[in-house]
Order: sequence, then structure tokens, then C-alpha cells
Amino acid sequence: VVDLTDDLRTVYWRGSSIEVLDQSKLPSKVSYIKLKSYEDAAEAIKTMRVRGAPLIGVVAAFALALTALQSRATSVNQLVEELRKVHVVLRSTRPTGRNLFWALDRVLGRAERAENAGELRNAVLAEALKIAEEDVETNLALAKHGSSLIENGDVILTHCNTGLGTVEHGTAIGVIKTSFRQGKKIEVIATETRPQLQGARLTTFELKREGIPFRLITDGMVGFVMAKGMVNKVLVGADRVLKDGTVINKIGTYTIAVLAKKHSIPFYVAAPTSTIDLESNVEDVAIEFRDQNEVLTVKGQRIACEGTEALNPAFDVTPQELVTAIVMETGIAHPPFDVSLRKLVKVSGKSQFQP
Amino acid sequence: VVDLTDDLRTVYWRGSSIEVLDQSKLPSKVSYIKLKSYEDAAEAIKTMRVRGAPLIGVVAAFALALTALQSRATSVNQLVEELRKVHVVLRSTRPTGRNLFWALDRVLGRAERAENAGELRNAVLAEALKIAEEDVETNLALAKHGSSLIENGDVILTHCNTGLGTVEHGTAIGVIKTSFRQGKKIEVIATETRPQLQGARLTTFELKREGIPFRLITDGMVGFVMAKGMVNKVLVGADRVLKDGTVINKIGTYTIAVLAKKHSIPFYVAAPTSTIDLESNVEDVAIEFRDQNEVLTVKGQRIACEGTEALNPAFDVTPQELVTAIVMETGIAHPPFDVSLRKLVKVSGKSQFQP
Repeated sequence: VVDLTDDLRTVYWRGSSIEVLDQSKLPSKVSYIKLKSYEDAAEAIKTMRVRGAPLIGVVAAFALALTALQSRATSVNQLVEELRKVHVVLRSTRPTGRNLFWALDRVLGRAERAENAGELRNAVLAEALKIAEEDVETNLALAKHGSSLIENGDVILTHCNTGLGTVEHGTAIGVIKTSFRQGKKIEVIATETRPQLQGARLTTFELKREGIPFRLITDGMVGFVMAKGMVNKVLVGADRVLKDGTVINKIGTYTIAVLAKKHSIPFYVAAPTSTIDLESNVEDVAIEFRDQNEVLTVKGQRIACEGTEALNPAFDVTPQELVTAIVMETGIAHPPFDVSLRKLVKVSGKSQFQP
Repeated sequence: VVDLTDDLRTVYWRGSSIEVLDQSKLPSKVSYIKLKSYEDAAEAIKTMRVRGAPLIGVVAAFALALTALQSRATSVNQLVEELRKVHVVLRSTRPTGRNLFWALDRVLGRAERAENAGELRNAVLAEALKIAEEDVETNLALAKHGSSLIENGDVILTHCNTGLGTVEHGTAIGVIKTSFRQGKKIEVIATETRPQLQGARLTTFELKREGIPFRLITDGMVGFVMAKGMVNKVLVGADRVLKDGTVINKIGTYTIAVLAKKHSIPFYVAAPTSTIDLESNVEDVAIEFRDQNEVLTVKGQRIACEGTEALNPAFDVTPQELVTAIVMETGIAHPPFDVSLRKLVKVSGKSQFQP
């Protein structure tokens, strides 16, 4: 995979391991860790050292490749059997985002079509590498489309982190970076995004690195900055987008979308086609609830009274009527989304699930 | 002052000092500090060891009393002159809440009516003690009125901390406590309230102490819990309420109010008459911006990338159309608030500013 951008790369294939940026150490330390087995990969995804829907998909794809390469199985059947078991393990790491399922199904599908064990190993690795490569190209294409929405003088509010959650460049933040590199004078307001603080830790790191002017706010300040007229566009990523345009994204997104509507501020979602799920209904989507200690503590320090119980949904659901447009690598989907999303997914040539 | 409730008391007059609960140490430690001069009091208010609009008013009143008692002045004129200077210092500690101005004006007004220095000293102390005493009575009366709004089975969302921000019992949380003591089966959802985490640190502490079932959420989860139907009432305090019902309260309140409206959830504000400002317009209210380090750090640990700038407005403005009712010690104000607030302030017998 060639470095196509100036962006920090989050994942490298190292032959016998996957090297990933340890996002839990940022912004104080840029360090990489080696994942030497699918178990390592599953653990890194669960603990969010590796995070962001697109990146999770890529790392899971590499974990399947690693499994195939490390296996002593000699037949396609045996190998596919092993991959299916690992597929189940990896699939269960994070239940909400779509890219994980999409990438795993794509690699497993390729394995199932192999004619012998040797070809399977090569093909599975090639597929995983292709998914990683495509992610960068996808983000660059998505960013170019999205930049048509961004104008000189825009102050863009973004939530969570959408850059280091991809292989390179990012989705929502990719649009911001591309617009800035085009010479547009823009500013960003980044929400800190409790409980995991991806906005405070990661988005500030990326914006600083790029030289884009920005300010950080707490999640509760979104209404304030909108009421004061300090924001004129919202741009967020997505972990899954349903066929009608329903957006499942990091907790806090729905709150921002309601406020954006109230203040007539466009609410844009950047989502590669691998995030689009044309099959599920909202009732089918499992919203992940994470360990309540993420809410009860910050950086290992307890903030709440002993005995406190916390809720910790990792995602929320934004209905399509709050979404202005969805930016994809194949173009920009406008309402009615049930038509536009289907069309732009078809253009991508990327099938839904089993390739 | 007699302990009228089982509640933790936040302030005691100790003759030559003001003893206050150090709220910066909670929930890990219940400790009191002695404020021995008006400078100590001003510092404690600025740094938010002492916080909450009603409590700030009480501590400032005691600080004026302390000034009068410590002064060597022998004439009313000299004493009033000194008190006016200190009044200016204390007034500037926190610009947004109304109770501070109300309490300071009330004590200074009493001083100005004194006939000799001895009477002034006695009268000023008596007035400060009365303000503290009245705060508890006011909260109990307010809570009783407010409890008529609370029913069995209610799940009440509250923001920031409204209990330890008073002398005893609290405003919004006072309504919750009184309702719970009446035997109503209720639950609370408390927002953590970044940046200072008053919800996570103080409200959990109070609810736990009282045995009221509750769960903590991050500020970005408000939309989620409302969309899931997990909340059926919102109850918050206020730092200032304007004559038309505009509510100025802790940052994040406006965001909650917009979401409550969207989900048809009643949005109640608990505000003693000392919080009501019948004179100012919203343009006249200075919203305090606090040090950005409060956003960039949590419990002294840096969370954002070096070089990050943060916004830190301490309050926001909720327009009256988002407010269902305002609970006061004299009754419950319903829209139109310009009529109901004025009436209930008049009933209280408490004048607006100069008594």
C-alpha cells in the first residue's frame, strides 16, 4: 500500500503481524503496536486502541488474513472452517458499525471461492490489502465530493474522530482537510466526545498537525455555539447508515443533529459505501453498550461517587429527517435517501455483503 | 441557624470566619474550609470551591458581614464606604448568577440604613444570617410546591448540581428529595456536566446519600435517553431567570431544553425568587467565560493536544418557549411568565434589589 496522503497512517501490514497506531496513547504519544494474532486484533478493537468503523473493518480483514497464514490446515475446507470461527469472534467485538461485517464478509467470501489452500492464503491476504488500499482511495474521493459543500469562511462543527478511524485521511475530517488544502479559509469546532474523548484527544491532534484553526468544546456546549451563530455547518462520520438515511454514529450525534435542525444549520454525514447498510432496519441494529467505567472515570481517575451506576451507549440513532446530505466516495446523496443511497452504492460497484 | 433538614449543610457562620464545604474535594472527601476574610470568600467563589447561585449569594453576604466586623472604622460612613468597595470585589467574582447581586445589595442596603457603627455591624451580620436561614426555608417551600409536579414512576433528568449549591436541601434536587421523602417511587438520570463535572461529582454524591435510585450519563447522551423514552421529566436549577421566563443556567441546559421540547418532555426550572431578575434583558446578562484549562483538563490531567484552544462559557440561555414551568418558593409560574413571575415575586415580599 502506497502512502497517498500526508496523513498519519493508522495501519501497516507487516507480513506476520498487523502494526497499528495505538490510539489510546494519543495525543501524548504516537506509538504503534504489533497485533500478532486474531486474538490480539480482537482485543485491540474491543478496547478501542483501534477504533473507527472503516479502520476496524481493515484490521479485522487483516486478522482473517493472519489467521489463514498462521493456520496449519492443508485444505480449503479446513481453512474456511477456521476462518468462519474467527469471523464469528471478530464480528462480536463491536456490534454496531457496518464496515466490520462488510470487510469480514468480503474476505471470507473470497476464501470460500478459493481452489486450493495456497491460493486461499494469497487471495485472502490480497483481499485484505485491497480493502486497506481502497479505504484510502475511497476517503480521498469522498473528501473531494464533500469539499464541494464547504465554502470560504465556514465554521464546521465535527464530533468524535473520523480521521484516525480510517487507514488514512478520514471521512468527515477528510472533507475538512481536503477543503483546507484547496486553500479554503475554514475553522473547526470539535466536540470533546465523552466518554472516550476522541474529539479532545484525536481530532485536536489531527487538526493541529494539519494547521487547521480549531477550538474545542464540551458536548454540552453545542447548543451554545449554535445559538450564538458560531457554527454554520455540521459534518460527522457514521458507523452505519440505513437505506432510508438513518445514521448510526457515535453517542452525541443525535443531540447535535436535533440542535442543527433547530438552528437551520446543514447536517452533513460522511460515509463510504462500506458503511451503508441497505438491508437492515433500525430495529435490527444492536447499539453497543460499553463498560460503565468509561463514564465513571476519565483517564483512569474516578470522577463519580462510589456506588454510582452509569449508562454507556456507544452510539445513537439520527433519523433521516435531520440529515441534509450524505457524502460518499461516489457522490453526494440528497433526500429522498432511499433512492439516492441505493444509486450511489450501485455506482461504487461494491456489493452489499457477500461479494 | 437551625438544621431544618437531614441534608448536608454547605455553610456555617463561625463568628470570625465562614466555614464552607469544599466542593472541589467531593465526592472523595467531605471537608470544610474556613474563609477568614472577604478575599478568602472571593477566591473560594472564583475557584468554585463554593458554587451554585444561592450559596454564592449567602457566602458573599457573610463576607460583607465579616468585613464590617473586622473593620476598625468607627462611623457608619466609613463602614459603608468599606463595604461598598468590598461589594464591588465580590460582585465581580461571578458575573452571571443573580443571587450574588441580590444578597450583596440586600446586606449593603441594610448597612446604609444603620444609625451608628455598632448597630451597622449587628444589623449586617443579622441580615446575612437571615439570608442563609431564608435560603433553607425557601428551598423547603420551593420543594413542596415542586413535588406536586412529580408522580410515582417518574424518571427525572437533572443537570449540574442544585443541592450543594444552596445552604441546604437544594432547588431542583430539593424537589426530587422532597418527592422521594413523600414516598414517591422515582428515579433520576444525572448528566455529568462537563467541564466541572458537578453532576458526576456532586449530584451522584447527594442522590447516593439520600438513597434515590439514579444513573449517570455523559452530556452527549441526553438525546439518546430521551429518544429511548427513558426520561419523562426534566428538572434543572437556574442562575438567573428574566422577567419573560428566559432561563440562564449551567452550560448544557439549553441543549437539554431543545431536546426536551423535541420529545415533548416537560422542562421544569426550580428557581427561588432571589434568582428572578425582573429588570434585565437578555442582552444585559454577562455570560461568564471561564479559564479554558477547565475544558483542556480533567482533574488536573490534560486531555487535549498541546496548543489546543477551548471555549468555556459557563452558562447558556434557554428561551422561555422551551420552559414548561418555573417552580418558586411562592408557587409555580406557568406561561405567560411575564405575568406569573411578577406575581409570585410580589407574593414573596422580597424586593428586587435594594430592600
